[in-house]
Amino acid sequence: MSQKQQQPLQSLIWKQEALDLLDQRLLPEDIVYLTLTTATEVWDAISSLAVRGAPAIGIAAAYGVVLGSTEQIEEQAWFNKIIDTANYLATSRPTAVNLFWALDRMKACAVRIMEQKLSLIEAKQLLEQEAILIHQEDEATNRAIGEHALTLFENDMGVLTHCNAGALATSKYGTALAPMYLALEEGIHLRIYADETRPVLQGARLTAFELQQAGADVTLICDNMAGMIMAKGLVDAVIVGTDRVAANGDVANKIGTYSVAVLAKAHNIPFYVACPLSTIDLDTPTGDKIPIELRNDNEVTEGFGKRTAPQGIKVYNPAFDITPNEYVTAIITEKGIIRAPYEQNLRQLFE
Amino acid sequence: MSQKQQQPLQSLIWKQEALDLLDQRLLPEDIVYLTLTTATEVWDAISSLAVRGAPAIGIAAAYGVVLGSTEQIEEQAWFNKIIDTANYLATSRPTAVNLFWALDRMKACAVRIMEQKLSLIEAKQLLEQEAILIHQEDEATNRAIGEHALTLFENDMGVLTHCNAGALATSKYGTALAPMYLALEEGIHLRIYADETRPVLQGARLTAFELQQAGADVTLICDNMAGMIMAKGLVDAVIVGTDRVAANGDVANKIGTYSVAVLAKAHNIPFYVACPLSTIDLDTPTGDKIPIELRNDNEVTEGFGKRTAPQGIKVYNPAFDITPNEYVTAIITEKGIIRAPYEQNLRQLFE
Repeated sequence: MSQKQQQPLQSLIWKQEALDLLDQRLLPEDIVYLTLTTATEVWDAISSLAVRGAPAIGIAAAYGVVLGSTEQIEEQAWFNKIIDTANYLATSRPTAVNLFWALDRMKACAVRIMEQKLSLIEAKQLLEQEAILIHQEDEATNRAIGEHALTLFENDMGVLTHCNAGALATSKYGTALAPMYLALEEGIHLRIYADETRPVLQGARLTAFELQQAGADVTLICDNMAGMIMAKGLVDAVIVGTDRVAANGDVANKIGTYSVAVLAKAHNIPFYVACPLSTIDLDTPTGDKIPIELRNDNEVTEGFGKRTAPQGIKVYNPAFDITPNEYVTAIITEKGIIRAPYEQNLRQLFE
Repeated sequence: MSQKQQQPLQSLIWKQEALDLLDQRLLPEDIVYLTLTTATEVWDAISSLAVRGAPAIGIAAAYGVVLGSTEQIEEQAWFNKIIDTANYLATSRPTAVNLFWALDRMKACAVRIMEQKLSLIEAKQLLEQEAILIHQEDEATNRAIGEHALTLFENDMGVLTHCNAGALATSKYGTALAPMYLALEEGIHLRIYADETRPVLQGARLTAFELQQAGADVTLICDNMAGMIMAKGLVDAVIVGTDRVAANGDVANKIGTYSVAVLAKAHNIPFYVACPLSTIDLDTPTGDKIPIELRNDNEVTEGFGKRTAPQGIKVYNPAFDITPNEYVTAIITEKGIIRAPYEQNLRQLFE
């Protein structure tokens, strides 16, 4: 499997005086990179969803702090500008946890730098390095997840994924898609099935796209075809990402994940969840404590730019669902593969 | 539940010198009836999918034979015109079994009439009555299915359906939707959930629409939300139509039906299939003998006039799937409710 570049498409490329950002609003039809040179442009890109995926948003914001303070020529003004820029960027997507985490880390870095009383040139270099480090750490985390996950796969296996937990949502590799990119590097052939993932079609628009770009063997299906391809014996494993894992191993992820998990269990197919440790929330005891966001009806009734349901129809449109731990064969993190009993084994990860 | 008309929308209305046909291509946005006065107009309407659903197509064709022969003023010419018109209309949708069945019945009726040597006025009346009878028999069959099915439902139950086996596909009531219309007549409240049914969205465009028009309590969901609403306890029963039932009770129906059946079983929810006896095919021993039609990729990649997946992506797009009999709680026909063992009990139906 080496038709194309074998490398995941990069959502962010740092060029010292600019951040090149893949405009995800135009996918899959057009591959266009925005060249951002100011914090305002980064704010706009985050706010308007040109960049999406919690890790990718955090990285973009970190570079935004660098871009926003680069023109200062006096140390205190430079420091003040960093804090102002970080606070400003935090308003671009008010609910993205990784955004606040990355901006806090940049502010803490600036505080440390000021304490060291370095030259402004050195100070600016250290701040830039912190953003690069956030970027590189995310990549290393995803690669480690991919290496652990790949030990579960064999040549020619069929692997089904839902939504997009891929390179586009992160610095590189993604989480659930990381083993697929590493398989390409190692010449291991996987038959990948991508659920289109209604209503917003992240599977069709993003997962199918980024895996196709990398030269992977990917087949797009509608969500309701998952059961049939399992019955036909085409699926040997399911792997998905997650928005949050509770302390007992219950998994919140994009709507439809639970249906896939139940179907997998009915067909004796392992169901894997890939995520960094930062996604595991020991303060949330069980999945039923995770609130379910209900989204706009029009995602379902006119999500394709054309109305496809009657006016005034009642719609139920939850953004995600909870998969209870009994359906989860393993949770794959950068520190290794965790299996039941999750309560105990997840806690041990953090000790 | 009596907000609106409480009557299903009629797909076909016979007006003696014209057939008024609901143009299903414009649903759900516009409710427009085509007034057809010639066999050619009926042929065009069937061929261009203005009318769909096997029973509805058969009824339209029967009326087409009447319209095609009405201007003849000599008996033998009239008879010849009936045969010619029937053969012509048979070319409008070459794979629709009900189309051939209805046209054969109209030809056989013409033969019987000619043997009786009636006046041309009487002969034309008898031919028209045969078409009306085909229309009325379909309605009576569906009503009987609905009455049997309704005995399985109780007030305030949640009922999930997939695709469109409704009034729009038949003369009236539909098959799977028949108990929902009868519930409205009897003042029984059902909380109906309609899967949107990707890729062609018959659930969103047709089922949600026709039930809403009739004043039913219907909620539209994406296919991948079925598992979640079952886990939340919102669904007490599933009911679907079918394209063909094998002798052992295996059921062929719109893609996604199998996933719903597996999810229903996992949640201990009964899974019902509604159909007339004519859909039960004792000559097909098991579901795996039913060929699976693969349809065009573009239904998945650009089904709504806008491309939603990358160019050149590999797509798997089966039109239907097979639900093995072990997932089928009961098959509801005009002759009553059939349960396992299906091999034996379906055969008894025809004895």
